[in-house]
Amino acid sequence: MSFSLTKSFLKFTFRCNNTISVRLLCTKPFYKVPKAANAKVTQRKSLENQAKITKKFKQRLSDYLRTMATPEIEAKLAPLRAAVKEYADIIRELKANNAPQNDIAKAVVELKARKKKLEDTEIELMPKDAAFDRPKLEDLLKRRFFYDQSFAIYGGVSGLYDYGPMGCALKQNMLQVWRNHFIIEDSMLEVECSMLTPSPVFKASGHVDRFVDWMVKDVKTGECFRADHLIKNHAEKLKSDKKTSNEVKAELEDILNRLDGFDNNDMQNVIKKYDFKSPITGNDLTEPQAFNLMFPTEIGPTGDFKAYLRPETAQGIFVNFKRLLEFNAGKLPFAAAQIGAGFRNEISPRQGLIRVREFTMCEIEHFVDPENKSLPKFKKVKDMMMNLFSADAQMDGKSFTRMTIGEAVEKGIVDNETLGYYMARTNLYLLKVGVDETKLRFRQHMANEMAHYAKDCWDAEILTSYGWIECAGHADRSCYDLTQHANATNVKLSAERKLDAPKKISGLEIVPNKSIIGKNYKKTSKEILAKIGSLSIEEIKKVDETLNQSKEYEIETSDGLAKLSKDMLTVKPFEKTIHVEEVTPSVIEPSFGIGRVMYAVLEHSFRTREGDEQRNFLQLPPLIAPIKCSILPISSNERFEPIIESVVQLITAFGLTYKIDDSAGSIGRRYARTDEIGIPFGITVDFESEKEPHTVTLRNAATTEQVRLELLVVAEVIHKLCNSTTYTWDDVKKQFPLFISEQK
Amino acid sequence: MSFSLTKSFLKFTFRCNNTISVRLLCTKPFYKVPKAANAKVTQRKSLENQAKITKKFKQRLSDYLRTMATPEIEAKLAPLRAAVKEYADIIRELKANNAPQNDIAKAVVELKARKKKLEDTEIELMPKDAAFDRPKLEDLLKRRFFYDQSFAIYGGVSGLYDYGPMGCALKQNMLQVWRNHFIIEDSMLEVECSMLTPSPVFKASGHVDRFVDWMVKDVKTGECFRADHLIKNHAEKLKSDKKTSNEVKAELEDILNRLDGFDNNDMQNVIKKYDFKSPITGNDLTEPQAFNLMFPTEIGPTGDFKAYLRPETAQGIFVNFKRLLEFNAGKLPFAAAQIGAGFRNEISPRQGLIRVREFTMCEIEHFVDPENKSLPKFKKVKDMMMNLFSADAQMDGKSFTRMTIGEAVEKGIVDNETLGYYMARTNLYLLKVGVDETKLRFRQHMANEMAHYAKDCWDAEILTSYGWIECAGHADRSCYDLTQHANATNVKLSAERKLDAPKKISGLEIVPNKSIIGKNYKKTSKEILAKIGSLSIEEIKKVDETLNQSKEYEIETSDGLAKLSKDMLTVKPFEKTIHVEEVTPSVIEPSFGIGRVMYAVLEHSFRTREGDEQRNFLQLPPLIAPIKCSILPISSNERFEPIIESVVQLITAFGLTYKIDDSAGSIGRRYARTDEIGIPFGITVDFESEKEPHTVTLRNAATTEQVRLELLVVAEVIHKLCNSTTYTWDDVKKQFPLFISEQK
Repeated sequence: MSFSLTKSFLKFTFRCNNTISVRLLCTKPFYKVPKAANAKVTQRKSLENQAKITKKFKQRLSDYLRTMATPEIEAKLAPLRAAVKEYADIIRELKANNAPQNDIAKAVVELKARKKKLEDTEIELMPKDAAFDRPKLEDLLKRRFFYDQSFAIYGGVSGLYDYGPMGCALKQNMLQVWRNHFIIEDSMLEVECSMLTPSPVFKASGHVDRFVDWMVKDVKTGECFRADHLIKNHAEKLKSDKKTSNEVKAELEDILNRLDGFDNNDMQNVIKKYDFKSPITGNDLTEPQAFNLMFPTEIGPTGDFKAYLRPETAQGIFVNFKRLLEFNAGKLPFAAAQIGAGFRNEISPRQGLIRVREFTMCEIEHFVDPENKSLPKFKKVKDMMMNLFSADAQMDGKSFTRMTIGEAVEKGIVDNETLGYYMARTNLYLLKVGVDETKLRFRQHMANEMAHYAKDCWDAEILTSYGWIECAGHADRSCYDLTQHANATNVKLSAERKLDAPKKISGLEIVPNKSIIGKNYKKTSKEILAKIGSLSIEEIKKVDETLNQSKEYEIETSDGLAKLSKDMLTVKPFEKTIHVEEVTPSVIEPSFGIGRVMYAVLEHSFRTREGDEQRNFLQLPPLIAPIKCSILPISSNERFEPIIESVVQLITAFGLTYKIDDSAGSIGRRYARTDEIGIPFGITVDFESEKEPHTVTLRNAATTEQVRLELLVVAEVIHKLCNSTTYTWDDVKKQFPLFISEQK
Repeated sequence: MSFSLTKSFLKFTFRCNNTISVRLLCTKPFYKVPKAANAKVTQRKSLENQAKITKKFKQRLSDYLRTMATPEIEAKLAPLRAAVKEYADIIRELKANNAPQNDIAKAVVELKARKKKLEDTEIELMPKDAAFDRPKLEDLLKRRFFYDQSFAIYGGVSGLYDYGPMGCALKQNMLQVWRNHFIIEDSMLEVECSMLTPSPVFKASGHVDRFVDWMVKDVKTGECFRADHLIKNHAEKLKSDKKTSNEVKAELEDILNRLDGFDNNDMQNVIKKYDFKSPITGNDLTEPQAFNLMFPTEIGPTGDFKAYLRPETAQGIFVNFKRLLEFNAGKLPFAAAQIGAGFRNEISPRQGLIRVREFTMCEIEHFVDPENKSLPKFKKVKDMMMNLFSADAQMDGKSFTRMTIGEAVEKGIVDNETLGYYMARTNLYLLKVGVDETKLRFRQHMANEMAHYAKDCWDAEILTSYGWIECAGHADRSCYDLTQHANATNVKLSAERKLDAPKKISGLEIVPNKSIIGKNYKKTSKEILAKIGSLSIEEIKKVDETLNQSKEYEIETSDGLAKLSKDMLTVKPFEKTIHVEEVTPSVIEPSFGIGRVMYAVLEHSFRTREGDEQRNFLQLPPLIAPIKCSILPISSNERFEPIIESVVQLITAFGLTYKIDDSAGSIGRRYARTDEIGIPFGITVDFESEKEPHTVTLRNAATTEQVRLELLVVAEVIHKLCNSTTYTWDDVKKQFPLFISEQK
């Protein structure tokens, strides 16, 4: 994925009520924390404070969508919605009247502030019983080693996590499903590129200059804080202080609403005005400084080969464009994909797997003729219903609407078929791996969220206890990336489009005498030849005139002025018939942060067994469950061993993962233990099993129902339950007799 | 995998004929270039030189083993073998007589020199037709984008490679087979740990201090060269110079033979004596300097959190030992595994995928009771025949011998069952993915190759055109790693062993008053408590005496002397019954460099079609082939489209990858194109296919034979050919009629 670079083109300044100048400069729209339910905990806050916030959090948590419908809540939200709509209408009017860009942008800032107030209120009004008990889930994930902090015995590193056996298997399964769903089914070109990347690549892509966060430092200790986080924490504390006047409270409220759009000057003004200090020492703070989020390193022993760890996998695909086009026999469109690690040196990582320093991404770059983004296979997905949250709906303060992706493309809500196709495929993938559809929406970027080169962007957002989390972006990035790399390297990164009819063209061409230029200018000659190669027709005419006047033609090089004489350059007319024209492809980019999807799936799968509040379990889709079945002898009697061995053999033959639990402890307790790690099916071997033909019971963890069936068929049944899209537990119940056990 | 740290304990110096002092200091036994057929090309050598060497190479290349048996060659090798054996006998006698370590080590150096001469001669004597045409394979791999240099449009970075669609799929398949073969079949605990690793972790593991190569710099330009490579290149050039005297030639020969054991002083002596200069500028060179091979970076914005990119995945498993042991219910033995990237900042990477800066490793850490390394499932593999090249055989100048792993363990050639089990499993894996068994051997480390803590090490080496390449190591590392991390962190990294009978123990114990110590010594108190906790009984007695004399007990801390009074420490006798004792597990570590295995498989699969020297192809095992089948209409007639669509549907339903080639060009040419990328099976749709029931032909690329069979069964047949271990092409031929085509 690629971040939107140049919101800066939208920069503007104006004076608002509280005399803060506002600029929009957005550096990292992807992986941006959604505003609604930001974690309000800095890492250094006292435990006391954390507990308070956790409590407050619980009232805000999740099951958001279902609550939105109640009439009481709607009544309270109506005026806020109206306030948003008011500004949306103003903006539409401004646009219709071709108002200056500045005026529109000002209005957008106000609109966003109103929207934020609406969203905050929505969350506040959630019924308390909809709260999600995150600490309980976290305890389970840690205890059963799904994942945990890296290097904990060395004190740990924030933002780095190690996946244990359960998390690793879950993630691997999710990646395998991703690979099958996207790469194999659509015959994409999968690549695996280096993570170590030379600096010039990220200079061209814009990361070296603009992939930054603003931080402030304690002037005495040097301790660093992300400037926006610091302001947020201070402002919230001050706002909730009884001594603070209502006037100041309103000002702070306003700052919090607008904070996302602040640049360094805006932030400095706030810090100065309210005299915010280091939360740890109380010392003064420096002005906000830019901090590049890429991890730097050096390649080779000389120390002068600067490199970075890639913050995204996308650039590796772009720099391989030529090879991939060739692999595809020169034809457009085609899609390349990559699954791999990305690294971001977050100033203060937090929110568990949501904001980390090392993560796995799955990215697709679909290269397409910019003038034809239709896609024949779009018809296969066009009837899919999806939760679409358009920019218009956001402007109007509405919620998302359900419609088919076909309708959305037809109405121009989604820009083109290719983009729509990928959104639908993402929708299908997320449902496959266990995302709750009522907590999934595709949110369109508003104009001021997108980079200037981007045509249309839609984020797949999933509602978790951290709020709406962006888990996959879908951006039409036009030809930005290829153009940047082509300019930086002088390598043509384009494809050929067949002309409907051959075309005759004529003009002037310039032919350099390479050997003479080489002899005269040695190292610089490559640069000179490149410059000559990129001259426009107008410029070639000028060269011709200059040479005809028996003068030398001068070119600026990094080594000073180069003088080119008549024996070095020949200008002559040409005429030729062309059958193709060059085109720099547009790129449509779906980009997944797989750790985020995984965390969302874990939240959505977390259940409490009815009638037993203490018994939590994970109801993961069998397709991605780390272990497909448990094998439990009813007691630890040795006589069960041969039967268990037969079961294992069959299970293994079907490539299924299993876990034997023959420890002491009641069967009920052992069920609970396997339920907790999301094992969907359990095979129990009991005394009845010894009778021929041997039978076992099969338990469905989701419902705790059990059937009895022949040992010989159990592995095949589980295999079908895990891999078939049509065979379900209902089919099993129809096929085999229910078994009633006292233990569930 | 982990490198052997402390060959330095074997360091010694002596004067040999050519007055060069010799020390053994080996930093990186894994991924070390085998001596026999080292690439003799530095990256900067002129093209001319490269061509010469390539020619020389061809005479040396591969198919080595099969040639070793001819009697003429054996006759020439016999005296060299005898020379080796002579020294092996001397060493045995020295050992038997308990000779000083120094004397033995001296003799080992001589032995190694004689062994090298033998090996070089073996390669020289290879028949020319056994040569392997590497440039042809490389051309194919580049042209069909298996892999290629990273960032080529930016000039490329040596030692970094991007995998294209074919290489990526091949590697993914090899990894998936690895995961199934090792992790799933043996129920290992798979983990995925952070690549970014804080400095203290590698300080403890020894990498910060000792994971280095020696380099020399051009004193004027700063250009860097690996010291041993530089000496090798200079010495070889000088040796082949006609003007060089025979005496000097012999000296140089000797240097080349001993170079692997040189330390910085030895190398400096050589460079000084022969006045070796920079091969590029002719300038003088600095003395050899240590260069750490880990890529450094920093975590967070402050600049004081030093970190490295891991050079191996193993440490991530060790630091998670406690969690993993807990996951395994506290029981030994268990195995954890990790598949992931490692990074090494090679001074001069070369030999394609063999020595790279970023690579994928597969590592297993098997934790076992050091007093019981037997393994019940060893019986499953004990009859496997393997090519074992023991340290004894190497000492005697013999070749490897074939024997069962059971015999090897029984005779004590392989140290224990657990180690033997993994060697056998590796053998099976390598054969599964297509390594030629006649070019595979397991070579035991000789005493001076192993770290002092290692019990036994066996490398799986594969013969390629680069010589014998180490592709997987198998080391019994004893308790070294866990002990190092436990010492560095004061966290207990041990398991419990049940005692046969409960044991009563009594003694003195020391109980610190933590709150008083904490109050008095604040930050230092943690260190003080750790020191108190590690006191021996003798030391506790001394504390007791000191306190009884009403004196304060003094402890040295990093913050100066701490004085502990009677109210801070209580010493009292205790008596208790224990049922378990603590044990720090031994670690047995199989470690794979998967890129190397892949390259070896590509070489071993590379074939020329009989009767057509220009037609090369890859005969990859269907299990790992990037694409399982091609679909080729006999001509590009539209009428074939519905049949092709049916084939695709069936193929996809079986989860098989495919490639349709309906381009113009004869069917023979299209076969050649699919053979080249290792597609094992081809489905051809012809005019006969249109008749009902629809049929197609199925082609086996390995033999170019074809059968005709019903369209409805073709996908299942291919699926079985790719995944079953018993169903082969012979079965297909028995089942379906052969189809005779003119095109092969």
